[in-house]
Amino acid sequence: MSVFMQEMTWQDFQKKKEEAIVILPVGSTEQHGPMLPLSVDAIISTGLAEMVAEKVDGIVAPPICYGYKSAPLSGGGPLFPGTLDLNGETLTSLVSDVCEELIRDGIKKIFILNGHFENEAFILEAVDLLSRTYKDVTFIESSWWDQISQPVMDQVFDEVEFPGWALEHAAIAETSLTLYFRPDLVHMDRFTEDAPAKELGYSIYPAERCQVPATGLLATARTASADKGKLMARDIAENYANILRERT
Amino acid sequence: MSVFMQEMTWQDFQKKKEEAIVILPVGSTEQHGPMLPLSVDAIISTGLAEMVAEKVDGIVAPPICYGYKSAPLSGGGPLFPGTLDLNGETLTSLVSDVCEELIRDGIKKIFILNGHFENEAFILEAVDLLSRTYKDVTFIESSWWDQISQPVMDQVFDEVEFPGWALEHAAIAETSLTLYFRPDLVHMDRFTEDAPAKELGYSIYPAERCQVPATGLLATARTASADKGKLMARDIAENYANILRERT
Amino acid sequence: MSVFMQEMTWQDFQKKKEEAIVILPVGSTEQHGPMLPLSVDAIISTGLAEMVAEKVDGIVAPPICYGYKSAPLSGGGPLFPGTLDLNGETLTSLVSDVCEELIRDGIKKIFILNGHFENEAFILEAVDLLSRTYKDVTFIESSWWDQISQPVMDQVFDEVEFPGWALEHAAIAETSLTLYFRPDLVHMDRFTEDAPAKELGYSIYPAERCQVPATGLLATARTASADKGKLMARDIAENYANILRERT
Amino acid sequence: MSVFMQEMTWQDFQKKKEEAIVILPVGSTEQHGPMLPLSVDAIISTGLAEMVAEKVDGIVAPPICYGYKSAPLSGGGPLFPGTLDLNGETLTSLVSDVCEELIRDGIKKIFILNGHFENEAFILEAVDLLSRTYKDVTFIESSWWDQISQPVMDQVFDEVEFPGWALEHAAIAETSLTLYFRPDLVHMDRFTEDAPAKELGYSIYPAERCQVPATGLLATARTASADKGKLMARDIAENYANILRERT
Amino acid sequence: MSVFMQEMTWQDFQKKKEEAIVILPVGSTEQHGPMLPLSVDAIISTGLAEMVAEKVDGIVAPPICYGYKSAPLSGGGPLFPGTLDLNGETLTSLVSDVCEELIRDGIKKIFILNGHFENEAFILEAVDLLSRTYKDVTFIESSWWDQISQPVMDQVFDEVEFPGWALEHAAIAETSLTLYFRPDLVHMDRFTEDAPAKELGYSIYPAERCQVPATGLLATARTASADKGKLMARDIAENYANILRERT
Amino acid sequence: MSVFMQEMTWQDFQKKKEEAIVILPVGSTEQHGPMLPLSVDAIISTGLAEMVAEKVDGIVAPPICYGYKSAPLSGGGPLFPGTLDLNGETLTSLVSDVCEELIRDGIKKIFILNGHFENEAFILEAVDLLSRTYKDVTFIESSWWDQISQPVMDQVFDEVEFPGWALEHAAIAETSLTLYFRPDLVHMDRFTEDAPAKELGYSIYPAERCQVPATGLLATARTASADKGKLMARDIAENYANILRERT
Repeated sequence: MSVFMQEMTWQDFQKKKEEAIVILPVGSTEQHGPMLPLSVDAIISTGLAEMVAEKVDGIVAPPICYGYKSAPLSGGGPLFPGTLDLNGETLTSLVSDVCEELIRDGIKKIFILNGHFENEAFILEAVDLLSRTYKDVTFIESSWWDQISQPVMDQVFDEVEFPGWALEHAAIAETSLTLYFRPDLVHMDRFTEDAPAKELGYSIYPAERCQVPATGLLATARTASADKGKLMARDIAENYANILRERT
Repeated sequence: MSVFMQEMTWQDFQKKKEEAIVILPVGSTEQHGPMLPLSVDAIISTGLAEMVAEKVDGIVAPPICYGYKSAPLSGGGPLFPGTLDLNGETLTSLVSDVCEELIRDGIKKIFILNGHFENEAFILEAVDLLSRTYKDVTFIESSWWDQISQPVMDQVFDEVEFPGWALEHAAIAETSLTLYFRPDLVHMDRFTEDAPAKELGYSIYPAERCQVPATGLLATARTASADKGKLMARDIAENYANILRERT
Repeated sequence: MSVFMQEMTWQDFQKKKEEAIVILPVGSTEQHGPMLPLSVDAIISTGLAEMVAEKVDGIVAPPICYGYKSAPLSGGGPLFPGTLDLNGETLTSLVSDVCEELIRDGIKKIFILNGHFENEAFILEAVDLLSRTYKDVTFIESSWWDQISQPVMDQVFDEVEFPGWALEHAAIAETSLTLYFRPDLVHMDRFTEDAPAKELGYSIYPAERCQVPATGLLATARTASADKGKLMARDIAENYANILRERT
Repeated sequence: MSVFMQEMTWQDFQKKKEEAIVILPVGSTEQHGPMLPLSVDAIISTGLAEMVAEKVDGIVAPPICYGYKSAPLSGGGPLFPGTLDLNGETLTSLVSDVCEELIRDGIKKIFILNGHFENEAFILEAVDLLSRTYKDVTFIESSWWDQISQPVMDQVFDEVEFPGWALEHAAIAETSLTLYFRPDLVHMDRFTEDAPAKELGYSIYPAERCQVPATGLLATARTASADKGKLMARDIAENYANILRERT
Repeated sequence: MSVFMQEMTWQDFQKKKEEAIVILPVGSTEQHGPMLPLSVDAIISTGLAEMVAEKVDGIVAPPICYGYKSAPLSGGGPLFPGTLDLNGETLTSLVSDVCEELIRDGIKKIFILNGHFENEAFILEAVDLLSRTYKDVTFIESSWWDQISQPVMDQVFDEVEFPGWALEHAAIAETSLTLYFRPDLVHMDRFTEDAPAKELGYSIYPAERCQVPATGLLATARTASADKGKLMARDIAENYANILRERT
Repeated sequence: MSVFMQEMTWQDFQKKKEEAIVILPVGSTEQHGPMLPLSVDAIISTGLAEMVAEKVDGIVAPPICYGYKSAPLSGGGPLFPGTLDLNGETLTSLVSDVCEELIRDGIKKIFILNGHFENEAFILEAVDLLSRTYKDVTFIESSWWDQISQPVMDQVFDEVEFPGWALEHAAIAETSLTLYFRPDLVHMDRFTEDAPAKELGYSIYPAERCQVPATGLLATARTASADKGKLMARDIAENYANILRERT
């Protein structure tokens, strides 16, 4: 049987839900440079969620495909066409409602697997508020880049120096993972090397005042590959499976 | 090029977006009896959105996979495991934010294609509020069952009498359309004939007090078929294409 | 003693409230053609509430005189002067606060009698949310047109064919009921026959884009009469009394 | 023609609305001792609104019959059965929506006539927020007790000393005005002299901790009379008419 | 050890918090004429809070320095530069969150000491809502001017007649108290006598339409002195200490 | 004249406000180990704000003393007594209201100086929403730790290795800065060496499930000193002054 709740009947879900961990992937609809699709964050979080679900006999809830506002220096920002951003309160309510419904169905273990940098504070706000009411439910939340083992990082950033996760947008890690999960949606021929973005140490508004490379790539994706994607995916999925086994 | 925004790069979207109609499919995660997946409403609205987009050279935005609360006598209600319901305000905010972002990207024509009965009031609330601010944007909203031509209805409900749309849940129309769009997810062998639900003419709460057939089927799906699904899908898509051509 | 809470002292209410059903009529302030007052929806729901209260020894709470947004093809829409619409969230909060206060006063049975088509989703949202907290309270909600018996329908629509409830706005049913409850406020001499409105199967915004007959009458009121009003009122009140006796 | 919008057709309203002042009475549903009905605040504010409307050729909008929370030492508080209180945000939204709709109908002069002490801050919040957007609309808000002339006060409080407006609840002024507007709803035979309430200079919660006379009367109504009601009503109405003539 | 929570370590707070009353001073940032600083309301409420805390062995929480909207005839209104007003909902949420966190830390007695006229309704809304959930917590709320004993009032308003608290803005009482608590921030040389403001008995918007003395002084501060400030401060603090001893 | 708005009269503010940058310090009330006061985040952000204001002739608005929820692994979390956390929406509203009022006073340049890790997303949400309306206002937001020059970092972390900013809570940087700004509130004698916290790469709820050192110190403060505080303060203030000169 599929691990995807979207593909289950209600009776499939009912049979499986006792003791099951439900994994909620959260993505975004956001520019990812000239060679990656707008749904990269949902593709990666859903792809990883599937791998984790298989390891822990979990269930993958329908992914949240819209995320919080893209920031210029971690996602390129709102000025790129195709970036569709939610207000913070909307994302918090959405995550909250979905989790609360899972809880009302008897679920006691929820893992929120985040694929979009800017989502995190608003997801955690939802979890914090729910957690005050539902004290017997364990919530774990994590962004996938926080669970890559150091040896894997070293292999992925073999030639290119790791620029920090904020700037690693549409760059080696995301491109490699998309090449692994959905190679049909990656157009490496459209990739062009751009001057990398630089962290400012402050935010400036209106958004137009923040300079971002014209491609939307904040760092190079030059050495991305499906193999690197596979390496990371397996590493992250294993790490998550271990966390879930230990803590839930 | 795909009509799905999720599969486009930002530059694909940018090229296409001038004058384009964006179609936003809205579904739900809701029980649909023992033989249909929880995502039927998203499958159908997205499938139809794709067909319409091809006819009008439109773009399909990422579908909204969670919807407003399932009512006992139009969707089986909240007590079936796997039905995950949003609060009204959450759905309104979600639709509002997505549409507003499309508008900020320059889109002037938005078609919201609804696949879940209970969503409609909360979608329209979002549209009404946006429309006060964005007076030069045309919004069209419709639920697919409101655009089936009478001759097609006659063919679909050939043996079984049409029970009204509220009770036609997980029944002939939805089953046929899912057989057409995603036959791999339909388990007709699990279908059992149940006593049909009856409209009460009132709502009663707590939800437990409303009797619903144990299968979650509010009417029979006995005569459903992929052919009927195809017939309806083509009819609806053509009707929508005509509306969009005339009114936008 | 009056059944109207507005006319009771707090001690009257206190004496009566044990075991009593409280009926909350919900109306609107909305155009109802050239011959009917703006408060038709409140007049009818309050008039029926009084009749039901007398049958079940209930209490009628102060009516809610403002309702959710009038839609062009079920109420004429926002462009008619005098139509004053609430946002959905406001109506939901209003119904919720009133019901919660009744519950804090010890009321266990609340019947919300709706007289305005567009209100229903937002009333039910309030009830659903309250019902999660107050599990021992029975809420029943109904719109009066959903409780007219078929023989009565046949008598009311004797000459004119029933156009469906969405279009039956300021038409035979509402005019007859207002003639029954408040004949002093009906100006049949101002009634003019207009081309009836047609259902579109979709909503379009801005509201200006939806064509509505200039009078605001969506269907004819030609054969309306106080007798038909009386017939319907008695039928509906009896049906509601039976429901309340059975289900609360 | 009636000054009450509830009794007008949309065309009546349309004819009259050019240049007209719309008066919105705001009341409450609140205990007013053993001899007065729960709707005193709406009765008085609506009665006065009618008188003012006649003087300035204005329109009376449907009254708001539910108000903000009764405080123990200005209305007896929430513990008396029959007191139904709105949350502040609900009242603010309600007033805001109604006024905004009037403005969208072309009204430029809105007078909010308040009859419930505790409402004022939440009404003014609505007005302040609207006023930022609709700069060409004049809003006037007033509670009726703030417009009684001193000579009239002297006549009304001839034997009994004026206790201050907070404690003058269900006492001489309100009882006299209700005797004037709706004598049929006043039961002076049920009036009993109670020890008057005393101002504390602080609020204490839970509400149970605040001592209030058992009748709900915060001061005596002993010398109330319809004549005093008439005297006040005429005085207030004239004062309001003058203010509206001067300031709008 | 300081009574100010801001100066305590978490262990200081932990030791002291058992049985302690926490006092939350609420001020504003609002014009107070040519001779007083914008923070008068926070200075006075915090100064008094410290005195009370010393008497009852209480803890002073960090003061809230922003308050609800200044009204023209009780604070000069929004048009004076430097007046920074919160929306009502923001103040309510802020007070609510702070109190709820204190309660989660085990605090059972909260005293909110208000220094800004217009704050009160929105503070009480927070307290009312919290009090429904936290029934074992005692909340007391008071504005300092409501606890001045009559003999002290007579001494303070010895030459000048008391104009009522609404108009006593930046006048004798506030100036004297600021001279007592923060003489370094008072510039009596900049004080000029202005024609006093008059109560209107109504509110008018847009705010520009309400006439206020150009200095922002609504009544004279001519006879203010640090001695009067000390007299009032000691009186108020003693009165509050007595209330807290009796009621908590 | 003081740079602090709290100490200015409205006329002082009026004179200075033309062209002035207003700096809004945002802190929190949060545990900072056994030797630092609960208000560290406000002390540091206000202290730095004063230094920057002096350099750029700016104005320091009243600091926001309450902040967003402390996370276990960046602030110790909600379980330490004395940590008083705001909900996200409250902080966003508070920052939004204050900034909007400044803008209504004519301010065109706002610098939000953040001193609490967890605040940032909710501050930026406020700024983003305001920035859509007020397109001619420049907003700059920054957390002070993002503007320490590398040579200064090297001097501050001379003996102890820098643990990353999330874990550098109540540690060398914050302790040194508090020793510089408010040495009277630091109790170095109470400092004890604790095992440092470790980053998990995920969040877990309920909060009790996250292990934090018992002191609340997430890393050592052993080598903190007022000199290091001064060094950082001067560096940060100079960096901010340069940014403000260049970008506003």
